[in-house]
Amino acid sequence: MKVLCVTGMPGCGKEEFLKVAGENGFAIVRMGDVVREDATRKRIGESDEAIGGFAHAEREKHGYGVWAERTLPRVTGDRVVIDGLRGSKELEAFRKGLGESVEVVAVHASPKVRYQRLRQRHRSDAPATWQEFVVRDTRELRWGLGDVIATADYMIVNEGDLGAFRAQARGVVESVLGGSSHVP
Amino acid sequence: MKVLCVTGMPGCGKEEFLKVAGENGFAIVRMGDVVREDATRKRIGESDEAIGGFAHAEREKHGYGVWAERTLPRVTGDRVVIDGLRGSKELEAFRKGLGESVEVVAVHASPKVRYQRLRQRHRSDAPATWQEFVVRDTRELRWGLGDVIATADYMIVNEGDLGAFRAQARGVVESVLGGSSHVP
Repeated sequence: MKVLCVTGMPGCGKEEFLKVAGENGFAIVRMGDVVREDATRKRIGESDEAIGGFAHAEREKHGYGVWAERTLPRVTGDRVVIDGLRGSKELEAFRKGLGESVEVVAVHASPKVRYQRLRQRHRSDAPATWQEFVVRDTRELRWGLGDVIATADYMIVNEGDLGAFRAQARGVVESVLGGSSHVP
Repeated sequence: MKVLCVTGMPGCGKEEFLKVAGENGFAIVRMGDVVREDATRKRIGESDEAIGGFAHAEREKHGYGVWAERTLPRVTGDRVVIDGLRGSKELEAFRKGLGESVEVVAVHASPKVRYQRLRQRHRSDAPATWQEFVVRDTRELRWGLGDVIATADYMIVNEGDLGAFRAQARGVVESVLGGSSHVP
């Protein structure tokens, strides 16, 4: 079984990596779906604020690995890519449940590029100002997102050249399928 | 004035970036030198443990930006690269003292490659085991090193191909000299 966790800051372009992994036979499991479905079941409401607040409250209550633990039952099959890793406690939970062979791929783009991307998406949560973007970055880093990015097994730089990005993504997928492991 | 802060996990290969920057007319200022000279003046001792403990005690006493503040007077001239950035409080201190144009370049290598590099260096602080290496990584991340890596303006991947690494490093130096800024 090959399991890869994908992580990155808001606007880094993780979706494009998931697409490449999907084209190579990986099933995609989204931690965000687990949070949202749990929130619906508990009648939390559907706004980003409500769901974000619920996710955080559950972390405070049950430990920072709780959303990884609740995601585990969905991770089945030969090749799975898990989207949404946000901290080392979650990675620990995945490695505990699935084995030490779980690897991490981080997608990086500069803050300037991520800001422009988030603005262009025109989603309801797009930052209105640079300051708002910086505040959101800081909030995202609170649970240790920076730690899993800094210690990722693969780092893909995604500053805008889609062809180069997809080539790097394919390289990662091939290496994982070739039997790589994060432990030497 | 162009100022670039270099950051990365132990064994990422930052030195090679400093070399390329030096070849392009950048003066190199090492935060580690500031710590060591301060430790000598205060008769702290010269072992890694003594100096590390002193650096940490000073952070606890004077704030996490203290080593950046003490480095500031050495940052003079047209082109300077600062080695040793370890957290966002330090970056804040540099931007406060030197202006918002200060940029960050992170050098990334996978944990597996960094472990092998540190072992091959045969220095007194080389990790004896993978477990020891993981513990050191965790300690390094304590002050927010992951946050400055995750939000770096430039990310250079350094998995072993020296030619590719130097080409990326030159690209970063040229972009900085061309007048880039981390704010859009």
